[in-house]
This record gives sequence, structure tokens and C-alpha cells, in this order.
Amino acid sequence: MYPNSLENLIESFKYLPGIGEKTAERLAFAIKDMPLERVEFFTSSMLEVKKKVHFCPICNSLTDQDRCNICTNDSRNNTVLCVVEDPKSVFLFERLKMFHGKYHVLKGLISPKDGINPEDIELEKLIDRVRTNPVEEIILAFRPSIEGETTSLYIKRILGDLDIKISKIASGIPIGADMEYIDAITLERALLDRKKVE
Amino acid sequence: MYPNSLENLIESFKYLPGIGEKTAERLAFAIKDMPLERVEFFTSSMLEVKKKVHFCPICNSLTDQDRCNICTNDSRNNTVLCVVEDPKSVFLFERLKMFHGKYHVLKGLISPKDGINPEDIELEKLIDRVRTNPVEEIILAFRPSIEGETTSLYIKRILGDLDIKISKIASGIPIGADMEYIDAITLERALLDRKKVE
Repeated sequence: MYPNSLENLIESFKYLPGIGEKTAERLAFAIKDMPLERVEFFTSSMLEVKKKVHFCPICNSLTDQDRCNICTNDSRNNTVLCVVEDPKSVFLFERLKMFHGKYHVLKGLISPKDGINPEDIELEKLIDRVRTNPVEEIILAFRPSIEGETTSLYIKRILGDLDIKISKIASGIPIGADMEYIDAITLERALLDRKKVE
Repeated sequence: MYPNSLENLIESFKYLPGIGEKTAERLAFAIKDMPLERVEFFTSSMLEVKKKVHFCPICNSLTDQDRCNICTNDSRNNTVLCVVEDPKSVFLFERLKMFHGKYHVLKGLISPKDGINPEDIELEKLIDRVRTNPVEEIILAFRPSIEGETTSLYIKRILGDLDIKISKIASGIPIGADMEYIDAITLERALLDRKKVE
């Protein structure tokens, strides 16, 4: 019904996660109304992301260089690794400007119920890296979940015999949250992980 | 912080209406994970929409031909014009497969408070078309609003002296709606426009 190219663009938008028919139409019409140069910048960025961005061979984060600029940054502490479940987490942490070690990105988390085993998330790459480098501490920074817990326990079991500290980020009540909206599991965890007031 | 091309893609997504930082990131990562052929189809549709889709010189709807396929369709009734406020409305009506006349698309609605006057929405193009063609009825199909009402009244005033029927689509309670969620203005309008039960 729409002109062909508009129909194709709507179809393309619908392939993106969380974009339904109505939103896809709205976005396609917005493209129609955008200045040509902006659309050309959009399409060339899209193709560049596909062609240039790849996983860093050392840490699995995303980069458009040979190695990512965190791995090649010699001023960062090589002895502490923050282990995360996806490349996005690296950028979340970097935005805080609080962590000055290096990262290691897994390809997700172990989830027996979804058939995701340690080999599916490339855990051996982390293990090799820890064994062959002067790592002193690894910080596990997964989302609090059964999968995060399973992956943490598995890593602890595999690397537990090495002389390194294995910690994980705290879970509990988010700062500023209203207590009555906190779910029971978070509340229970916050209670179990209570800290002595100094 | 992200690789450059990814950062540019996130920026591009943020230029679309209703897409904020987080959604833009999510969509950019989705592009990264899409098969290359699909991304190429996406970018080529985007550029085609910009280059090929334009306003039909007769009715102002969107087309990638010289004239839109409704204007060039001789089996459609030339004497009834459905006047709408944007090209999208044409496609909404067409989907119903209920209207077999032709369309005329205005460039929005008159809105004195936003400084949008009759000349801004190309009303003279409609008026010319009605005067120079064998039009017998025009149906005004604007969203129920002050702007829709203003535009309808203006058209009625300009074309009222011609021997054509000017009607507008009904407004009232949407079918299936729960009465308690209907706003007061709609309810008032539904009461004023009540119809005799036959």
C-alpha cells in the first residue's frame, strides 16, 4: 500500500528489538523527513559498525582497532580483571571512571535451563588469560540472577586453586529506592549481605 | 568510549523521534548483531526512501511514481474526495478497503496558536482541485481536535458557495471502549451528535 521503498524501510525497522508495526511506520516517516546528509551519515555508520566493529582478541569487548583501547592502555592495572557478561557492561563501568583495571567479557552467562554451558560463553578464554598473566584479583560483575550466580560459582570452582582473589560486586537495595517497591529476593539478599555499621 | 562507528550509529538513532540514549544503544547493538545482508537492505531502503519517495503532485500523498497509484486509478470515484491531514491517514483509510473515492492530503491542520495559517497547509491546492474538477462531495477526515475543527470550518467557509456536499467523519465513543475511561469532551460531543435509533 505504501510506496515500495517505504514498505521495505518499515520492514527493516521491524527487525529491530522492541519495534512494532506502529513505531516502525513512525520511524520510517521520520527518515523520509530527515535531511539527506543525516540519513547518509546514518546509513554509513550502520555499515561501518557491521564492517569495522569486532571483538577484541584479548578481552572480547568491542573495538574497531586490532585490540581495544583498554587492553592496549599500559597505564591500567593489569593485575585486576573485571569479568562481565556482555560488551555493554564494559561501557557502563567505563562511564563511572572508577575502575582502573582491565576487563574480560564473557559471551553471556551459564544457564543450564537454556542449554548454555561453560563452553558456550567461552569461559576457557578467561581461564587461559588468568593462568598465563599476572592476575591477582578477578571481580565478577554479573547481573544478580540465577545465571549470574551459577557462572560465579563455576568460575570460583575452576580458578579456586590459583592464588588469586575472586570477588563479586554487591547486590542489595538500590540507592534512593523506595523500600516498598523492592522485591522479596533482593530484600532477602540485602539482609543476608548486611554489613556492620562502623 | 564506544568504538567511533558505534558511537555515530547511537547518535543517529537518537535523532529519531521517541528514541532516547538507552534505546539508541540497544538498537545500535542489534545492528551489530544483524546479518550484513539485512543491514545492507536496511540502509538501501533508507536511501531509496529519501531519493525516490515524494509527494504526489495531484493529491500530496506519498509515492515513488510520477503520480500516486490512487490518483492514476481510473476505477476509483473521482467525484468524492477524502481530505486528510497527513499522508499516513491515506494509508490508514486504504487499509480499511472501504473508501473508493480519491484523497487530498493537507500539510497539517490550521492552528492559530502555533502560527499555522491556511497558506501553510497548502489549502489553495485543495480549493483549486475542487474548483477545476467534477467533485461532488468532500469528506473531512481530521483528528477530532480544535485544529481539526478550525480547518473544517475554514474549508466550509471557502467552499460553501459551491454546489458540493461537505461532510466530516463522526466523532464519539470508540467501539468497545469502557465508558468510565472516556474524557468529558468526547462524551459531550457524543451526546450532541446523538442519532435517532431507527
